Amino acid sequence: MKKKKVGVIGATGYTGSEIVRILSQHPGVEIALITSESRAGEKFSDVHPFFQGIVDDILYTADKVDDTDLDLVFLALPHGVSMDYVRRFAGRDFRIVDFSGDFRLASPEIYEQWYPKNHSYPEGFRDAVYGLPELYTDSIRDAKLVANPGCFPTGAILSLAPLVHAGVIKKEGIIIDSKTGVTGAGIKASATNMFSNVNDNFKAYGVKKHRHTIEIQGILENVGGALGPVQFTPHLLPVDRGILTTVYARPDSGGRKLIGAGSGEDPAKTVEASSNGKAKLEELYREFFRGKPFVRICDNPPTLKDVRASNYCNIYVDYDDRTGNIIVISAIDNLVKGAAGLAVQNMNVMFGFDETMGISHIPVNP
Amino acid sequence: MKKKKVGVIGATGYTGSEIVRILSQHPGVEIALITSESRAGEKFSDVHPFFQGIVDDILYTADKVDDTDLDLVFLALPHGVSMDYVRRFAGRDFRIVDFSGDFRLASPEIYEQWYPKNHSYPEGFRDAVYGLPELYTDSIRDAKLVANPGCFPTGAILSLAPLVHAGVIKKEGIIIDSKTGVTGAGIKASATNMFSNVNDNFKAYGVKKHRHTIEIQGILENVGGALGPVQFTPHLLPVDRGILTTVYARPDSGGRKLIGAGSGEDPAKTVEASSNGKAKLEELYREFFRGKPFVRICDNPPTLKDVRASNYCNIYVDYDDRTGNIIVISAIDNLVKGAAGLAVQNMNVMFGFDETMGISHIPVNP
Amino acid sequence: MKKKKVGVIGATGYTGSEIVRILSQHPGVEIALITSESRAGEKFSDVHPFFQGIVDDILYTADKVDDTDLDLVFLALPHGVSMDYVRRFAGRDFRIVDFSGDFRLASPEIYEQWYPKNHSYPEGFRDAVYGLPELYTDSIRDAKLVANPGCFPTGAILSLAPLVHAGVIKKEGIIIDSKTGVTGAGIKASATNMFSNVNDNFKAYGVKKHRHTIEIQGILENVGGALGPVQFTPHLLPVDRGILTTVYARPDSGGRKLIGAGSGEDPAKTVEASSNGKAKLEELYREFFRGKPFVRICDNPPTLKDVRASNYCNIYVDYDDRTGNIIVISAIDNLVKGAAGLAVQNMNVMFGFDETMGISHIPVNP
Amino acid sequence: MKKKKVGVIGATGYTGSEIVRILSQHPGVEIALITSESRAGEKFSDVHPFFQGIVDDILYTADKVDDTDLDLVFLALPHGVSMDYVRRFAGRDFRIVDFSGDFRLASPEIYEQWYPKNHSYPEGFRDAVYGLPELYTDSIRDAKLVANPGCFPTGAILSLAPLVHAGVIKKEGIIIDSKTGVTGAGIKASATNMFSNVNDNFKAYGVKKHRHTIEIQGILENVGGALGPVQFTPHLLPVDRGILTTVYARPDSGGRKLIGAGSGEDPAKTVEASSNGKAKLEELYREFFRGKPFVRICDNPPTLKDVRASNYCNIYVDYDDRTGNIIVISAIDNLVKGAAGLAVQNMNVMFGFDETMGISHIPVNP
Repeated sequence: MKKKKVGVIGATGYTGSEIVRILSQHPGVEIALITSESRAGEKFSDVHPFFQGIVDDILYTADKVDDTDLDLVFLALPHGVSMDYVRRFAGRDFRIVDFSGDFRLASPEIYEQWYPKNHSYPEGFRDAVYGLPELYTDSIRDAKLVANPGCFPTGAILSLAPLVHAGVIKKEGIIIDSKTGVTGAGIKASATNMFSNVNDNFKAYGVKKHRHTIEIQGILENVGGALGPVQFTPHLLPVDRGILTTVYARPDSGGRKLIGAGSGEDPAKTVEASSNGKAKLEELYREFFRGKPFVRICDNPPTLKDVRASNYCNIYVDYDDRTGNIIVISAIDNLVKGAAGLAVQNMNVMFGFDETMGISHIPVNP
Repeated sequence: MKKKKVGVIGATGYTGSEIVRILSQHPGVEIALITSESRAGEKFSDVHPFFQGIVDDILYTADKVDDTDLDLVFLALPHGVSMDYVRRFAGRDFRIVDFSGDFRLASPEIYEQWYPKNHSYPEGFRDAVYGLPELYTDSIRDAKLVANPGCFPTGAILSLAPLVHAGVIKKEGIIIDSKTGVTGAGIKASATNMFSNVNDNFKAYGVKKHRHTIEIQGILENVGGALGPVQFTPHLLPVDRGILTTVYARPDSGGRKLIGAGSGEDPAKTVEASSNGKAKLEELYREFFRGKPFVRICDNPPTLKDVRASNYCNIYVDYDDRTGNIIVISAIDNLVKGAAGLAVQNMNVMFGFDETMGISHIPVNP
Repeated sequence: MKKKKVGVIGATGYTGSEIVRILSQHPGVEIALITSESRAGEKFSDVHPFFQGIVDDILYTADKVDDTDLDLVFLALPHGVSMDYVRRFAGRDFRIVDFSGDFRLASPEIYEQWYPKNHSYPEGFRDAVYGLPELYTDSIRDAKLVANPGCFPTGAILSLAPLVHAGVIKKEGIIIDSKTGVTGAGIKASATNMFSNVNDNFKAYGVKKHRHTIEIQGILENVGGALGPVQFTPHLLPVDRGILTTVYARPDSGGRKLIGAGSGEDPAKTVEASSNGKAKLEELYREFFRGKPFVRICDNPPTLKDVRASNYCNIYVDYDDRTGNIIVISAIDNLVKGAAGLAVQNMNVMFGFDETMGISHIPVNP
Repeated sequence: MKKKKVGVIGATGYTGSEIVRILSQHPGVEIALITSESRAGEKFSDVHPFFQGIVDDILYTADKVDDTDLDLVFLALPHGVSMDYVRRFAGRDFRIVDFSGDFRLASPEIYEQWYPKNHSYPEGFRDAVYGLPELYTDSIRDAKLVANPGCFPTGAILSLAPLVHAGVIKKEGIIIDSKTGVTGAGIKASATNMFSNVNDNFKAYGVKKHRHTIEIQGILENVGGALGPVQFTPHLLPVDRGILTTVYARPDSGGRKLIGAGSGEDPAKTVEASSNGKAKLEELYREFFRGKPFVRICDNPPTLKDVRASNYCNIYVDYDDRTGNIIVISAIDNLVKGAAGLAVQNMNVMFGFDETMGISHIPVNP
């Protein structure tokens, strides 16, 4: 098989480093180009020394794309920057997987409500496909532009999609309490990611207003119809990698029936849920994710290390008959399943490769 | 002033160590006795070497209580063990602050539903007072037996008490998503608290069934009347100390009026909350905790290090007009405000000392 | 190519888990058997849940070796236990890579001086080969029994071997100050590896008497002739994986000449070292490790994450003309290059595979 | 007792925060002034929010010193900045404790060899006293300007002072292998102190050239006469606070006699050290530090948490008769005994207070 040629635009961040780590051992592709505006002329391993002797490619500026033969390009660029590159590459025949938030939302209007920038390439939304293969494999296969999901949305959407798709929860009152590792904040040093501010510490941030809220809302509604506004609260963990998402939702009457919880107004108090509520929910999840190689439904609440450095998403689902709440807990590695691994999974789908090619790494634990 | 004589029963755990750390520099008391059944005959600093040269007291068995002059005894013992000591000390005239869960609940019957043991001293419930001075100062002042609150309940109850007391939230649907440091699991080595299972990791545990659920439920109902069952989900952080609690509740019609959120059926969609919803809630909290020296209402979400090694509880309260949820986030040090510091605060109240005596340590940060 | 059949004896520890992680994606072998005496009958993924859906093999007792067709067996067993299995398998025609310290030393006599046990299979020493392919490729190729090096010795020996082999340092006064991650202490919970004893903490242990001292001493003397007793001091880092070793040695007259430091009695004070002392040493190291794919000579002091989850050993070497000391600093992942990865590297040599087959993982950083 | 009035010049760093934490609960002083050029006009608790409600003093620019009645001023300023303030305050009658390295060395000439700046106030060296009360109590008592020691030197000098003072070790070959927490690098965010570069990681830095080398060298020679150049290698730990120093030295003939190691040319090989070498060394250390309240000689190697958030320095000393090396291991909290606590200890000496006043905090562990 002739290897596909791929390029990585933006090599200095964590997602740039992580996608090169994955691609450089992927059997179906060769990395034809890595770019960085700020470090052009240096070696990739000058920027990320742990690649010394492994990936010593010279970095070019993005102009080099013009005279490079490429089948697909990954844009590992910040929000607000990617859009300009997507516009610039519009006439080219390579395909694009974009890591940024620039084309994930339903429209430029919604984008501008949540992101602090006017969108420079509204036309891009027309063709952009949301790159979550567990939901949109068919669209991704033929997409010219794939908007790689945000890290929080990946965990939150996979946690809730089976419930909203089946239409078994109430539209109102969904709570998504997420906890992320520090690499989600990027590679630039700041008070936010300083060791002594993070280590042995924990906090919430972006309360009420984190931009991933609207991404989660939009995709869940695309999957299951209109919802009340979801509450999304991110927290910062003293860990490098990983997102653990704890979701609370309430079954509607159909959901209570599914679970065996009856249909009383106050199911927690008046109705004994059948003992197999958890089992019924697991069945629903297993069915929904049938044939999806990276989702694992787990008997016990997952830990971040259960998925670290891998493309897996572990999901635990339970029903509390005392309170009447469904609780879903998921774990992903934000740099892999929440970014670079997912991007390669999208690429695999786009190229017609086996979906797991080059990303079947076993979690590194401990 | 003549110093009061206090004893510490159970010296080998974290709470035993922490209360000795605090008491040994408390100006109003002297430590007359420290006991340990398993390490009797050794020095306290043999068990906790960082006390070498500071607290080198010999450890005795608890029998030594019989011939020691004591004004107050701290029981730093596990659940199910404390009750036997409370019974044993029933005829003595010293007062007791009990760290265990044995006398925190409303009745022995409820205890036996949530704890895996028959209660050996039901009579103790009659006189036991729940030791949260922010709520029960007057009862604590004269109590013979103070049940020192659980670490999770301390954070959760302080977060919710102003709301339930004011009667401004719906009875149903309260979500308490808590994250604790490892010392909450005690000093005994196990797979749960092994470094490589905790470091760079995170998980939920005790989902649906943690015993602190009923303690939180019971006290909140005591403060504000009957509630629907609260959902409490603890998670394990890779930090030594601290509990961060994120609470979600919905204002009832009175609450929406207070906040300025109108009274529509779906306030998040149909009614613009006034911009000062947060301010109104902060006012409610400041009023509720007026004169309580250890609660700080904060403009920004607190971090664990903002309170580490101190007796403070930092609370952030906010209203999300998009979703219609009230969000409360609190931070405490589980070993201080969640255990030993709170116990000394109770002691201060019992002895008529200034409530802050010996526990006004400034947080250690970083 | 027909895949070789391998077995893993002892699956419950970190090295057992790690070797299965590596072997299960190794293109040249299939795992024919995994054993555990304590967990036989369960699945491998019951013991290590992060393997769920990936390696769900049933665990057998070691008896199962008798009726399994095997080309090579890994003994991932504790010191003092392995020897019995080596004896038991003596008549079998499969080859053995033993993770324990039971056959690493020069003789049973030396073993019994440093390990608290009488050796039950002294005959094993006759054929055992020390499994460090950077030094002993030829012997390993044909070995029946390979004694996989200890984690500390791997880092320390690779750091010093070029110097002792070239005979350029004084025999006396070698200092090896090592710092290891917690997984080196094994998977069994104890006060030593409890989170709250390790996190935000650091200490030396095993001062003067750690058993790896004699292993380091023995191999270095095998490489370069008799040495004065080396000083080896291990320290415990609050990290999961990794060993950083800082070595201090003094050039002898030949060494000073090599470095360009002259031949005075007190080179640090009386002779200006040539500015290229560091360069000369790097040249020596590069030459020594020519063709060794896993040793990287680095311009800057290495970090643990530069090699994490990989089989690389990064080495920094320098000369301080102020003090006259050579300083060598190396970093490895103790579970990979210090255990399971090295074992597979040995296996690759034994089977005539490419030395890097299945172990060319790029470091996971961060 | 009338409280002394003290000022803190430079409030935004870790040492500024830490000295305010200590001083604000010190019974002998009141904080009359806190300054910050960059944050003047804000509250101290705006800069360090964990002080909210505790220390809400307004920050002034340093000009405010001119019209403030002060007995002593702490300069919590960077190297190269302090000197200008010392010059500026030369005519004032308050005393100064300077945290920087500007007046710690023997002369401006030596300063300029190791620090990248011309010294602007050479006259300051005349009166400056090195502020290590364990060595220089008498000079500190009357000093106008106390140069507060560097964090590494504090640990290293206390570890070696008894040996060089007694003249029992060889002048050549002293190795100081130090490991520090991240706060030693200051509060400014950079790649060096980013969480993901530090967490689960470890490295050496400043090899051969760290500026604390000459400070250690200078003071040890002041205590015990000329020495060969000491080798000092710092390493960066993934912890907030603490320095652990591992020292290797060789007894000279007097030292071997003291230890009972005989007087052979190669004591490690030819002479059995008496079994009480360790005891003899401990005796030497106990004698040297008699009456020094913050030095604890320990039976076992210390951990960082044994001294965390306290002013203690724990020291372990041992003799290895196999190698002939003396090994000393010390632990301090770099922000307390290595900076702010030591500064207050100096202040106590200067004011004639009890040396432990306000700094007898028990370590916070865990």
